[in-house]
Amino acid sequence: MYAVIMAGGSGTRFWPASRAGRPKQFLNVTGKGPLIVEACDRLGSITPDDHIILILGRQHGPEVKKLFAERSVHILLEPVGRNTAPCIGLGALYARHRGCEEAVAFLPADHFIRDEDSFVSALREAAVLAEATGGLVTLGIVPTRPETGYGYIRRGKEYDAGSGFAAYEVSAFVEKPDLQTARDYVTSGEYYWNAGIFVATPERILQEMEAHLPVFQKGLKEIEHALDGEDYERILEEVYRRTEGISFDYAVMEKTRSSVFVVPCDCGWSDVGSWGSLYDLRREEQDKQGNVREGDVLLEECSGSLVLARGERLVACLGLRNVLVVDTPDAVLVADLERSQDIRKIVNRLGQKGKESLL
Amino acid sequence: MYAVIMAGGSGTRFWPASRAGRPKQFLNVTGKGPLIVEACDRLGSITPDDHIILILGRQHGPEVKKLFAERSVHILLEPVGRNTAPCIGLGALYARHRGCEEAVAFLPADHFIRDEDSFVSALREAAVLAEATGGLVTLGIVPTRPETGYGYIRRGKEYDAGSGFAAYEVSAFVEKPDLQTARDYVTSGEYYWNAGIFVATPERILQEMEAHLPVFQKGLKEIEHALDGEDYERILEEVYRRTEGISFDYAVMEKTRSSVFVVPCDCGWSDVGSWGSLYDLRREEQDKQGNVREGDVLLEECSGSLVLARGERLVACLGLRNVLVVDTPDAVLVADLERSQDIRKIVNRLGQKGKESLL
Repeated sequence: MYAVIMAGGSGTRFWPASRAGRPKQFLNVTGKGPLIVEACDRLGSITPDDHIILILGRQHGPEVKKLFAERSVHILLEPVGRNTAPCIGLGALYARHRGCEEAVAFLPADHFIRDEDSFVSALREAAVLAEATGGLVTLGIVPTRPETGYGYIRRGKEYDAGSGFAAYEVSAFVEKPDLQTARDYVTSGEYYWNAGIFVATPERILQEMEAHLPVFQKGLKEIEHALDGEDYERILEEVYRRTEGISFDYAVMEKTRSSVFVVPCDCGWSDVGSWGSLYDLRREEQDKQGNVREGDVLLEECSGSLVLARGERLVACLGLRNVLVVDTPDAVLVADLERSQDIRKIVNRLGQKGKESLL
Repeated sequence: MYAVIMAGGSGTRFWPASRAGRPKQFLNVTGKGPLIVEACDRLGSITPDDHIILILGRQHGPEVKKLFAERSVHILLEPVGRNTAPCIGLGALYARHRGCEEAVAFLPADHFIRDEDSFVSALREAAVLAEATGGLVTLGIVPTRPETGYGYIRRGKEYDAGSGFAAYEVSAFVEKPDLQTARDYVTSGEYYWNAGIFVATPERILQEMEAHLPVFQKGLKEIEHALDGEDYERILEEVYRRTEGISFDYAVMEKTRSSVFVVPCDCGWSDVGSWGSLYDLRREEQDKQGNVREGDVLLEECSGSLVLARGERLVACLGLRNVLVVDTPDAVLVADLERSQDIRKIVNRLGQKGKESLL
């Protein structure tokens, strides 16, 4: 099968490790390598490198080409970010152009998945379903806590794909809930986290574009004519410039009249949305006092802390509880680990102060 | 009057700003300049530069000569540290050699004094007393809290020096007390902190050396013969090598049969013994949330914290309370500010790990 890995994000939630020029997908947040490389690697058993299409912002072209210099993955550079719907359209177009008629998985580049076997099995099942039904399939992450930061997918009646693998019709995509609602969702057993992972044939995607984003679909046709030609970049830029940013969820999944299925997946997924969630992910690295450390770190009577020395400098801590320390060559962040979702406040203030070089 | 400034200390309590090669007296701990320079400057109104004798370890020769390149202070380098008694003996010898018959003040280089006028007045009074009586005079710091980290001086009967300035005979030098005893001391009004500041004529000091450290006194005579000669450094080293380290308090003040006086001094003195005490000293710099900052620091919802960016790097903090952050080019320390007296634990572990370059 083909895979389109969407790496257009530009978050600040991992400042100071992530910067505008070096967003999360390029970070070694888990200690194993850049997330974008992990995202490709975990598909190894179902997708050869030359069936992988990476889509990301043009400004990250040099870095991604360096990362994948030895590999045959395809790299498409978006001139400007326009959210996931155009990105998925472009990926589907390119896959079809490469001769792909089978299912394509569309995946964010910056997520963490603990159990890669479960994940790949679910993707494979979703592909079978997408090809057999011609519908849209999404992975539904089995929720492990009443998370209010994610959207949810409500399942409808079970669909017997004949493979013994559970699949359901989608009854609804629902917005981020409040805590009580999230608790009800988890208790009911009928809701999954929406991880933004879709599987469908290129044909299905392009038909959905025509139905729900007809203007962009015309643009895609222009791009298709220009593919492999000298005008490609100019045309791509023209089309993207005049396209509005919109998510695939909102533009297509919530409106489509095609069949939509959800394949449940219990794979230890996380969107790694903050330093705090990274600390949770790296639980198995914790010492007896619950500290996670990386690099040249010396901890004395500390507990529950995440201390990352990435600045070629010693980081020594004494008597701390639940503290986050991230040292980089030009900035060091010290924060209450439980406040790590507020790091944008730091980034905003740096912006106000005109400290562009640190953003 | 003459002054001998003793700068032989080699503490680790201000790690990572202070190092073995750069102890506290060379640090700009108060934000105003190196403590050793402050110690000289505050004597400006009573002592010309060429009546100031700085005594410090040989390893700090280059740094101190650079600091005082434009000034006519005298610099004596000890080949090895032997605590304060030999240092005071050497200072007295050198002052006498320079022709000094009047009182000499012997002062540590690494203390903080808020009210320099009160301090200088007390020194001047002590000098008058030392010259008039031929005795030993110590400054007694009026205690402001029941500090258990200092030794105390118990005063005896008042001595009328005829100047209207209070002075007392010393009744006893007492060791660091426990908290209840310290409280009693403060309440009684009869105890002062022992700041290790003495005033006496060189003759008195050298006679005390003869009485209480006769072996070292013989060494001092050898040094005296060698002063200004080619053998000076070799002889100084020989004498120091065979001399035991001992404090002037213990060797002389507690044993002398001469008159010993204490001149009370209420001058906002601190030995700046830890980052925590430095934070207290710099109270007037605190922002509304009680933070003290230095350098390129960005604080978001922090309180009661001391954040020093001395590493040419941004230090950003979020949601912290009572935290100490000290950033230097090769190490950053993050600690509970109230635990700052335990920084030696960090330094000890660095030593165990063989990280000499960071010590």
